[in-house]
Amino acid sequence: MKGMRWMSENNGEDKKQSSLQRYLYAADKERLRTLLEEMSQIAAASIETAVGALRSGDAVLAEKVIEGDDLIDEKEEQIDQECLYSIAMRQPMREDLRFVYSVMKIIVDLERIGDQSVNIAMNVRDLPEGITFPEEMIPFVEKMAEENIKMIGEVMQAFAGEDETVICTARERRKLIKETRSNAVSMLDKIIASEKACENDRMRLFCTVILTLRHLSRISDHVLNLAERVSFIATGISPLTLKRAQEKSQPKTLFDKEG
Amino acid sequence: MKGMRWMSENNGEDKKQSSLQRYLYAADKERLRTLLEEMSQIAAASIETAVGALRSGDAVLAEKVIEGDDLIDEKEEQIDQECLYSIAMRQPMREDLRFVYSVMKIIVDLERIGDQSVNIAMNVRDLPEGITFPEEMIPFVEKMAEENIKMIGEVMQAFAGEDETVICTARERRKLIKETRSNAVSMLDKIIASEKACENDRMRLFCTVILTLRHLSRISDHVLNLAERVSFIATGISPLTLKRAQEKSQPKTLFDKEG
Repeated sequence: MKGMRWMSENNGEDKKQSSLQRYLYAADKERLRTLLEEMSQIAAASIETAVGALRSGDAVLAEKVIEGDDLIDEKEEQIDQECLYSIAMRQPMREDLRFVYSVMKIIVDLERIGDQSVNIAMNVRDLPEGITFPEEMIPFVEKMAEENIKMIGEVMQAFAGEDETVICTARERRKLIKETRSNAVSMLDKIIASEKACENDRMRLFCTVILTLRHLSRISDHVLNLAERVSFIATGISPLTLKRAQEKSQPKTLFDKEG
Repeated sequence: MKGMRWMSENNGEDKKQSSLQRYLYAADKERLRTLLEEMSQIAAASIETAVGALRSGDAVLAEKVIEGDDLIDEKEEQIDQECLYSIAMRQPMREDLRFVYSVMKIIVDLERIGDQSVNIAMNVRDLPEGITFPEEMIPFVEKMAEENIKMIGEVMQAFAGEDETVICTARERRKLIKETRSNAVSMLDKIIASEKACENDRMRLFCTVILTLRHLSRISDHVLNLAERVSFIATGISPLTLKRAQEKSQPKTLFDKEG
């Protein structure tokens, strides 16, 4: 097991990289930056469109999000291929390899953000006829979406500048998103408590609300992952190391991991 | 954009791999097989333990699943590092690179299976005092878990033998899991319809049931992904290509992508 160390230190096992390889690698890196920027914009747009569909109960718009997911999957595959090609042909070492590896991990989280938008859109599409998302819940959902989109923008800006401090901003924003979710759940509890009958359609609607809040909360976890990857590019400190340091200093939360 | 093609064909851009590199790569590959086998067993065990906790309402067992997830994350990081090391140092090409790349993707799905088990466990842990999972739903949940675990075993066996036919078995099993979920939802609808009052705790319980079914259904999606990766190792046909072929021949399902 070589651990993350060999991406940070010169352990004497390096292959020599020719100046042509270095030149070609620099071009690869620029290209990867552009592709990743594009993919992040598609992911952010998917959140916005999904929440737009939810607000207006627009099944056609929801379908657009669901179909648009193929584009994200294709981008992921394309970027994966370019990363592997670069590793195999340019033989980047240390910080360069760290960069390519991080890109391969960042796209996994971007793809999962897209998946969560699809989930929100599917919930909109599958609402029973005549049932709409509760008006009182919309502001919470919009707030969570907005913060997530801002967070993605900030992380991508930090990616461009290899700025590791983004992790602090990202943690704060994620905290705010989790708080908004928690307030939304309290509000929902009140709505449920005031229900007179226990109807199947209403039950399903409440589940949909809980799920939507989960999906939006889960997006913020993925964006924090992105921030950790950006920080890793800049510092060489792995996300798992960061996570362990974080866990020691903070109590565990009750929020789930997925879905 | 080089696409998946350069992992299948000799496009004249190959670096020469020395016989020492070939020898070392073969050793890497054996090691990756062993590590992946270990990781898949941990993932399968997490499903079994999570459903065990659910059946008995055992919060301590649930906590064990939640804490055990760190082990899966560590395995993922370890395998990732070994894959990158192998790509950079041994310069595998074509089917060898395809193998390493597929391993890097397989571990993402194994990690996500672990996440879903954690979600199930968290739902068990967070059930209100005195509320247990509905007895009538247990057989469905157990059936889904059992099929998922079988499916993982079959896929890993196919991985060992680089057998692409596993994709058919996996599709069949996943279909069975989705049908079981669908039957479970019908049963739940009946339970809800027979409720007299609309209590918050009962509401939460029903949501937990719906979510648990989702998590188990979602696991089967990840296992199918594994099967597609195994098939890619054997044939060089990418999962995205497979998916497109599949979509053309089958109507879209209503099942969601995540959570």
